[in-house]
Amino acid sequence: MRYLLGIDGGGTGCRAAVADMTGRVLGTGKSGSANIMTDMENARLNILGAANAAFADAGIDASAIPAAAAVLGLAGAMVGGNGEKLRATLPFQQSLVTSDGTIALQGALGDTDGTVVIIGTGTLFVTRQGDDIRFAGGWGFKVGDLGGGARIGRDLLEEALLAHDRFHPSSPLTDAVLHRFENNPHRIVEFAHAARPSDFGTLTPLVFEYAAHDDAVALAIVNRAAAQIEEGLDAIMPPGQERLSLIGGLGALFEQRLSPRYRAKLQKPLHDALTGAVQLAVKNFAPVRKEAVHG
Amino acid sequence: MRYLLGIDGGGTGCRAAVADMTGRVLGTGKSGSANIMTDMENARLNILGAANAAFADAGIDASAIPAAAAVLGLAGAMVGGNGEKLRATLPFQQSLVTSDGTIALQGALGDTDGTVVIIGTGTLFVTRQGDDIRFAGGWGFKVGDLGGGARIGRDLLEEALLAHDRFHPSSPLTDAVLHRFENNPHRIVEFAHAARPSDFGTLTPLVFEYAAHDDAVALAIVNRAAAQIEEGLDAIMPPGQERLSLIGGLGALFEQRLSPRYRAKLQKPLHDALTGAVQLAVKNFAPVRKEAVHG
Repeated sequence: MRYLLGIDGGGTGCRAAVADMTGRVLGTGKSGSANIMTDMENARLNILGAANAAFADAGIDASAIPAAAAVLGLAGAMVGGNGEKLRATLPFQQSLVTSDGTIALQGALGDTDGTVVIIGTGTLFVTRQGDDIRFAGGWGFKVGDLGGGARIGRDLLEEALLAHDRFHPSSPLTDAVLHRFENNPHRIVEFAHAARPSDFGTLTPLVFEYAAHDDAVALAIVNRAAAQIEEGLDAIMPPGQERLSLIGGLGALFEQRLSPRYRAKLQKPLHDALTGAVQLAVKNFAPVRKEAVHG
Repeated sequence: MRYLLGIDGGGTGCRAAVADMTGRVLGTGKSGSANIMTDMENARLNILGAANAAFADAGIDASAIPAAAAVLGLAGAMVGGNGEKLRATLPFQQSLVTSDGTIALQGALGDTDGTVVIIGTGTLFVTRQGDDIRFAGGWGFKVGDLGGGARIGRDLLEEALLAHDRFHPSSPLTDAVLHRFENNPHRIVEFAHAARPSDFGTLTPLVFEYAAHDDAVALAIVNRAAAQIEEGLDAIMPPGQERLSLIGGLGALFEQRLSPRYRAKLQKPLHDALTGAVQLAVKNFAPVRKEAVHG
């Protein structure tokens, strides 16, 4: 008996699903961070950990793992040959390493055309028209990922310091941030100096919360982020395309912030990224009879 | 015989001047980075190295160093007790550790009222009205230092990636940047990931060069930076004050970019920051007769 394995891995954790050759999920598991850009070996261990947990959850003996056919969607897989390097070290009989965007697209849209924006700590744009899949954004928060949670948090700290110096107007939000840092701008600087992208991102819910109460600074930050996401859509989404999904931790928060022309195209994602990975495993590794069914 | 010592230290290097008790400079010396925020011990060694070089340059035996009275203007001196920590380890008979902004202000304005903006890798605003000296900005490029070289370089890389993804229009400048990184956005991401503030700053001359030829992206970046510096001036410079100096590596480049109302107040700095440190040493440590003369 041979099994399919779907893996969804990123900086905050790794999930796995084991399925039969038709794509029916038999068990799932999870583990810690699988960031192959910053720690390849730890990512590999967490991928194997999640896979083991999924097989255990399904009640299948781990001896079946080496025969599995796996699709792994991993953040950073397309950067600098990282995906290929990882693939060479995996114990599965067949492995396809692709980006987190590819499995998210498959999960959200199934086999239809459309565009997906993954808005979490970062922002990644993926669009599919027939067999043509294109990506944009996703370059990391330092010089990219405009509209994502890390940028929103970083913008907030910047506005708090500008308000402290009276370069920009203060607001209840900037007051709240300064208060959180003991009204000491040096504390903000220290936090920012040590912050990982996800640390900046922890401030993002505060911005949306104050924006909902019409805080001027919060609205300016959120509206700029929404405008930046629309700039990406303007660039990547084919004019006639009718299907758009915003996914990721912040996706739903942005839905009401889009212009009417994009709001009209919004559809809830069909499935999550892990299901997308399993679907791609069926497409790539199941017997031909199945491939014909799934297109 | 007792000597005064002026020290001007920052991330890119450390300079020292030894002077007699009237402030007449007898010798100067320099050494490497004196960034007390990131490497206190190395900063201390370079401060002592520059002081030793200055005494040697003046032909004074190093045995006179422990009797010296020193004023040190150091980037980051006012953050988290760094200045006090350093002061406790210095071998001079008297030491006053203050910010780089204080000695720059003294050097540029002498004893008159006015405002100084130090525009280098970062941006720091200092204004003096009588005995009242106030600072703003200078919080580091991650969440501050708007208008400084690190921010300009970072903005440029961001625009290059946005142009690559066709989210923003390209220009000869973004083409040149992409070409410099082998037309591979991953190279830009790798550079940004590892870049120190000064590394981002190395891209800044390119931006001003293209702005001089009316490159649209370059002009947008430079004009935004100039507007951010004016926001700081609007906040910190008293309305009636008539004297403004832009100093630091980028100061002169911004002079022609300011609005007429600020251009009208521009004056060349009287002296550099190292001279300002020596002047402050006279004020603080020379016999009372001298203090009376200098106010």
